[in-house]
Amino acid sequence: MRISEIGEFGLIHRISQMLPPGGQEVVVGIGDDVAVLRASGERFLLATCDIQLEGAHFLRDRITPYQLGRKALAINLSDIAAMGGRPRYALISLGLPPDISVAYVDELYVGLRAEAEGAGVTIVGGNMSRSPLGLVVDVFLLGEVAPEHLVLRSGARPGDVVLVTGTLGDAAAGLALLLDEALQPDEAHAASVKAALLTPTPRLAEGQAIARTGLATAMIDLSDGLASDVGHICERSEVGVRIWAGRLPVSPAMQEIAALAGRDPLEWALAGGEDYELLFTAPPPAVEALRTAVAEATGTPVTAVGEITPPTGGRVLIQANGQAIPLKAAGWDHFR
Amino acid sequence: MRISEIGEFGLIHRISQMLPPGGQEVVVGIGDDVAVLRASGERFLLATCDIQLEGAHFLRDRITPYQLGRKALAINLSDIAAMGGRPRYALISLGLPPDISVAYVDELYVGLRAEAEGAGVTIVGGNMSRSPLGLVVDVFLLGEVAPEHLVLRSGARPGDVVLVTGTLGDAAAGLALLLDEALQPDEAHAASVKAALLTPTPRLAEGQAIARTGLATAMIDLSDGLASDVGHICERSEVGVRIWAGRLPVSPAMQEIAALAGRDPLEWALAGGEDYELLFTAPPPAVEALRTAVAEATGTPVTAVGEITPPTGGRVLIQANGQAIPLKAAGWDHFR
Repeated sequence: MRISEIGEFGLIHRISQMLPPGGQEVVVGIGDDVAVLRASGERFLLATCDIQLEGAHFLRDRITPYQLGRKALAINLSDIAAMGGRPRYALISLGLPPDISVAYVDELYVGLRAEAEGAGVTIVGGNMSRSPLGLVVDVFLLGEVAPEHLVLRSGARPGDVVLVTGTLGDAAAGLALLLDEALQPDEAHAASVKAALLTPTPRLAEGQAIARTGLATAMIDLSDGLASDVGHICERSEVGVRIWAGRLPVSPAMQEIAALAGRDPLEWALAGGEDYELLFTAPPPAVEALRTAVAEATGTPVTAVGEITPPTGGRVLIQANGQAIPLKAAGWDHFR
Repeated sequence: MRISEIGEFGLIHRISQMLPPGGQEVVVGIGDDVAVLRASGERFLLATCDIQLEGAHFLRDRITPYQLGRKALAINLSDIAAMGGRPRYALISLGLPPDISVAYVDELYVGLRAEAEGAGVTIVGGNMSRSPLGLVVDVFLLGEVAPEHLVLRSGARPGDVVLVTGTLGDAAAGLALLLDEALQPDEAHAASVKAALLTPTPRLAEGQAIARTGLATAMIDLSDGLASDVGHICERSEVGVRIWAGRLPVSPAMQEIAALAGRDPLEWALAGGEDYELLFTAPPPAVEALRTAVAEATGTPVTAVGEITPPTGGRVLIQANGQAIPLKAAGWDHFR
């Protein structure tokens, strides 16, 4: 059987069925972006990894080594943010092709260091190898969270509001610009969407502010695209979801570039991927307190984009005309 | 500047100079195979990662997916063993080329699971990506050790004896067989050296037995080759070393295959790499107790192969004829 037939999530499910479950020390094991472990101290230990492979995740001539270093760590920070956690230590696994110079590795580490310092992370080790396969940057990140602040994917309940931080689809617009130099949008717009793609801002302070309220019922970071990622919450929480297309927060920059590229901005907002915003759920009475907590801690806007329904409600998108259509999990799947 | 000009260890040194040192919670940071962290509990947290890249570390037609799974985890277990630690949790980062089947991934995980179960490790997560570049298996391993049992590279003192577990050079003999099918040694010999290469046995019980005695002054696992790896102890401990060529423990299998291949068995024992034995140091009065502790716990032989000298003694090999020559760090360096 080909992997493309079952897809990334089918394969992960298959593997998780093959492996013995962890003991009671494993709070969250295989199948989530982050493992949650009951360490010997008061806090839970968080562990995650995310890889950047040349030709799959990036093209070496479209991202600087500084940006690549920042992004490789940022996407892991985003996973810790989605748990309400605090990142602590990183290990960096590098595969270096023969044509990479010392100066390139230096700049990659300047980027890793900048991102680490901004997040309070210490780089404590790793390994490096010659790579005949192109450049490989794999980051392992450890973090921690107080048990009472941990937010999982499994707590969403029918009636909860679905909220997201920031705006959606900017990274997809940035990618469109990188791949088609004929697109010539407003310069500030171009700069902001390229930054969204190449140096995403992990929503650490937002995640911690959300977690501290104790009001969020579920949380995930948007790496593959809202349509796909909200599905993980639906699966784990055994609920349905209704997303309102007209309420998705989108930037003027993304809208301008979608128009120039002849693309549907809704598609980018739902399935563009790499937004690294947080999507979380909470009962309606908690929404204002959550908005205020995030705004006070960070200034980041929080937008209500949908509601959790009973599982029989399925996963639907309410279009601007009021019509409900299936919310296709059209996010990024590596193998389809 | 090309990486080949400064080599793997030059590059690691350069990076470690670029990064801010960790706080007091970082017992051992960048530059070692394993990070040692003061977690909130009573035990130190150990974190390590080691990658297997197709074409650099393995050829897909010379190792089964089951063997690759076992080996990818085993080489990380070996790093924890060298700290006297107990491995606990693993994350697996996979990059899968389009021609890899679901059955291949299944078998890889059967191997990972077998190795994990043997070592008391729970696989708690990871990630997987499409890889246009060939197969990538990166393992991130967490472990723990009681602070009083931690053995570092930095404690060797002049006069200490240098000891190794098991035999040296078997993996190099296994590699020679894999690469030259014309070599036809004794079948049992062939099987044992291929197993040494493809499914190395991490010396976890040995490392823990050594650590529990409290007698070892320094320890490292032999991944690159004795001549190179003992150098890391010399650097960190600021000492010299004298290795006795005639006392290196070698198997009849390795000797037969070296003879067939027209290679010097001493070269394989010193610089073949991938032995994943433990090298450790201890004052002479402690040697018998250490040997006994390892033998009682595991049955694994321990051999004295040299002695630690003042730093002015340099790093020398005493040949069979009594002549001293420089101990060349001719081990595996990815970039030279």
